[in-house]
Amino acid sequence: MAKSKFEYVRDFEADDTCLPNCWIVVRLDGRNFHRFSEQHEFKKPNDDRALHLMTKCAQTVMQELEDIAIAYGQSDEYSFVFKKKSRWFKRRASKFMTHVVSQFASSYVFYWKDYFKDQQLLYPPGFDGRIVLYPSNQNLKDYLSWRQADCHINNLYNTVFWMLVQRSGLTPVQAQDRLQGTLAGDKNEILFSEFNINYNNEPLMYRKGTVLIWQKTNEVTTKKIKLPKEAEEKEVEVTRIRTKVVPLHCDIIGDQFWEEYPEILAEDS
Amino acid sequence: MAKSKFEYVRDFEADDTCLPNCWIVVRLDGRNFHRFSEQHEFKKPNDDRALHLMTKCAQTVMQELEDIAIAYGQSDEYSFVFKKKSRWFKRRASKFMTHVVSQFASSYVFYWKDYFKDQQLLYPPGFDGRIVLYPSNQNLKDYLSWRQADCHINNLYNTVFWMLVQRSGLTPVQAQDRLQGTLAGDKNEILFSEFNINYNNEPLMYRKGTVLIWQKTNEVTTKKIKLPKEAEEKEVEVTRIRTKVVPLHCDIIGDQFWEEYPEILAEDS
Amino acid sequence: MAKSKFEYVRDFEADDTCLPNCWIVVRLDGRNFHRFSEQHEFKKPNDDRALHLMTKCAQTVMQELEDIAIAYGQSDEYSFVFKKKSRWFKRRASKFMTHVVSQFASSYVFYWKDYFKDQQLLYPPGFDGRIVLYPSNQNLKDYLSWRQADCHINNLYNTVFWMLVQRSGLTPVQAQDRLQGTLAGDKNEILFSEFNINYNNEPLMYRKGTVLIWQKTNEVTTKKIKLPKEAEEKEVEVTRIRTKVVPLHCDIIGDQFWEEYPEILAEDS
Amino acid sequence: MAKSKFEYVRDFEADDTCLPNCWIVVRLDGRNFHRFSEQHEFKKPNDDRALHLMTKCAQTVMQELEDIAIAYGQSDEYSFVFKKKSRWFKRRASKFMTHVVSQFASSYVFYWKDYFKDQQLLYPPGFDGRIVLYPSNQNLKDYLSWRQADCHINNLYNTVFWMLVQRSGLTPVQAQDRLQGTLAGDKNEILFSEFNINYNNEPLMYRKGTVLIWQKTNEVTTKKIKLPKEAEEKEVEVTRIRTKVVPLHCDIIGDQFWEEYPEILAEDS
Repeated sequence: MAKSKFEYVRDFEADDTCLPNCWIVVRLDGRNFHRFSEQHEFKKPNDDRALHLMTKCAQTVMQELEDIAIAYGQSDEYSFVFKKKSRWFKRRASKFMTHVVSQFASSYVFYWKDYFKDQQLLYPPGFDGRIVLYPSNQNLKDYLSWRQADCHINNLYNTVFWMLVQRSGLTPVQAQDRLQGTLAGDKNEILFSEFNINYNNEPLMYRKGTVLIWQKTNEVTTKKIKLPKEAEEKEVEVTRIRTKVVPLHCDIIGDQFWEEYPEILAEDS
Repeated sequence: MAKSKFEYVRDFEADDTCLPNCWIVVRLDGRNFHRFSEQHEFKKPNDDRALHLMTKCAQTVMQELEDIAIAYGQSDEYSFVFKKKSRWFKRRASKFMTHVVSQFASSYVFYWKDYFKDQQLLYPPGFDGRIVLYPSNQNLKDYLSWRQADCHINNLYNTVFWMLVQRSGLTPVQAQDRLQGTLAGDKNEILFSEFNINYNNEPLMYRKGTVLIWQKTNEVTTKKIKLPKEAEEKEVEVTRIRTKVVPLHCDIIGDQFWEEYPEILAEDS
Repeated sequence: MAKSKFEYVRDFEADDTCLPNCWIVVRLDGRNFHRFSEQHEFKKPNDDRALHLMTKCAQTVMQELEDIAIAYGQSDEYSFVFKKKSRWFKRRASKFMTHVVSQFASSYVFYWKDYFKDQQLLYPPGFDGRIVLYPSNQNLKDYLSWRQADCHINNLYNTVFWMLVQRSGLTPVQAQDRLQGTLAGDKNEILFSEFNINYNNEPLMYRKGTVLIWQKTNEVTTKKIKLPKEAEEKEVEVTRIRTKVVPLHCDIIGDQFWEEYPEILAEDS
Repeated sequence: MAKSKFEYVRDFEADDTCLPNCWIVVRLDGRNFHRFSEQHEFKKPNDDRALHLMTKCAQTVMQELEDIAIAYGQSDEYSFVFKKKSRWFKRRASKFMTHVVSQFASSYVFYWKDYFKDQQLLYPPGFDGRIVLYPSNQNLKDYLSWRQADCHINNLYNTVFWMLVQRSGLTPVQAQDRLQGTLAGDKNEILFSEFNINYNNEPLMYRKGTVLIWQKTNEVTTKKIKLPKEAEEKEVEVTRIRTKVVPLHCDIIGDQFWEEYPEILAEDS
């Protein structure tokens, strides 16, 4: 069978190498998650099970793929930042995008039951992804700030909206009308005066989203070993340094985070 | 929170619109499926459960996404062909790629248990994807021919290889050495003379892979309806025409297939 | 001097290969030619010297570069169509664009004096270029039709506009106001009733622009040769078939042109 | 004439926007300049007329186009560096490339006679161009260092090569053989011991190439003005600050140049 006769079709594949020395960001979003969250009875405005599952999937992506320096997630989206110097798959954009979304999607179904114990998964969900390059550290920090600012704005709105619906009995349309044109201060005031809620006491995970970084941890285990001159096995403690993906719920817009973890942006990281 | 200050980062996202009037092919491959297939004890050289699961996932992709005219799969890969005239997501390459692989990956885990009843899924698998454009119908047919020729070549090799290992007791290295430099005719001869196997009688699914196309089917259901002047409900047969994704295991290199299904390549399809 | 230390910068150059099996069109436009034409006192609405110079430059481009099948020009623009199968410079978009515009620009200055005998060139003009791919013959024909339709629309407008200014003494603003909202028929009518001009008798070059194609021509030359058995040299006529770039001013929107010159679109041309 | 029917072809033009916040380099090379320089009897190894003409063209490009921060040239090539923050033509790659090469090419013919007084231009030359993005200042400096190191290596080689040919009477092939495998030190030694030439005393323009930067200059002119209470016009000196493109022949590999002209790399330049 003349395979070679057809192989010219390989030349039609375009080169999609990412420009060197740029941060490579892959952002993933749930497809039709408004509908998905209703059908799976997500708690509003925030469902801890769903948020923790998203983070579990993102951790899996960071561990299975290479060269991801940091990730940031909120709601049904997650951004993965590959190192400036990464040479993974020769920096081919399609490889970065498809590995991220496929690993995330399969993990979502795989780990679903660990988080949604009483809620069956009705159908396999879809995700989309896109890739963006950022030449400078400031551009990258501004990108992550943009996503965290978006998290804050949406979460404040959603918190008030669902209070008006769930506690004050407004219809969604009425709640929307009520919030039309309000500023952040107005929303804080409604929460405080009508529902006795201080927005700043709301869980950090809701207000700040989730940052995933690599951290060295000391892992202490006990091992049974047999020493040369002794008859019996003996238990000894072994301390191993492991690098793990750790979730944080902190501000990444200000400088403090970046000063605390300078290795994330370090040139040769 | 000044979101607008950061929003300039959106301008860094590049436009990846696919050239109009070209067939858009997304090919997906299993990541590290050599290892995955061993860990999940896939039968060699072909595991029906795995092949059927792949096809189930591909059918889901065709049904959930838009404008896929035909798909072709073999081993751990599947190619999806979007219509020349598709305007789905404004023809953005990243959307095509990520929707295909994420839907496929989540479906793989979701439907796993329907095909691998006695074999638990050990971890969530990954897939990669790429996108290629083909300007002419001939280019597209040659692409699909290339993949089917590849299926044939690999399957013939694998069939002999695993016979030598499983029946003749050769080690993998010995089997590889034995097959070094052999032509298709030699391999057919080994199969026939040593194992009494006529390769042409091997299952079509193994030799030709799987083609997925849309077909209209008549679906006959019975409904109970109450007619105006009658007291009792009555059962009537209702025939609905539905369009379904149908798997075929046939040759797509020759002209016959394309003459039988002219609508696949039809300009305004 | 450590050149190698710096050579990594070569990896930043992106691959810009054009998709195979597509027509590659490079369209060139004069930069600020409104101002340029005023400063060099171009005759309005059409200056034969300028149009013939443009065509001379385009002929030079076709002769100096490779694989150009056809070119079309009007006003201060020219489109060059490279063959579908061209492998010139590995189909790199930047090569196509920059070779076309640089050859055109240097030719424009070089040949200026042959066309503008009494008018000195005041400064070196600039041109910009862009590249567009067309997968099918129909797409290409529609592209060329688009440019020729544009030529017609602009030339009809300009013909009336300049008549109103030059003969009726309207100011440009008055002429513009007069033509506001008029259809093609109205403009034809103004030309006929007010200026006794039948637009269809205007020169074809103005109305249709210029098509450049390759044509075989018999070139008859006389050579002196010395025949073996004769003492004297003798003059003989030698007919050589040469391929030349020939300008036409004809309709390329209808089928007739393409039927007359089928080799232009021929697959293996 | 139905122009709209054809206008869909505009959608085939791809977006080629350059990634923001990157230096945009356009490098131009003479096409077939080996042949061109022979036909126009360029002095070897360096022809001052040709080098000055190249620089005149590059100055014209910097003055006519926008946002070029620095340019560097040697032999028949020139690199133009557009500012990181440039928004010229929405950062479209094709615009940058084609404007540079067309302006350069037309200038080359236009200014030819000012430099080659006794040598007629035989035909219009061609140039090619390419575009490369550099995310960081260090990348950009390394790019320019790469080109200057290339200038040095080539010029040292050419200087010895042409001495061997012109003074020692070697054929080009003999000269080439003689230099095969020699290091920089060997070439310096040949120049010194055989031709009494200290390479370091060769003109800077040959050894370092040409750097073009913007410099403020005080331009003093005299104007005649009539003061209110005086009968006669009076001559006064007027000092205007003008920004001009100035050629330098200095090292740009070390830090000194960049420390002396910090505004070139300044963020908001």
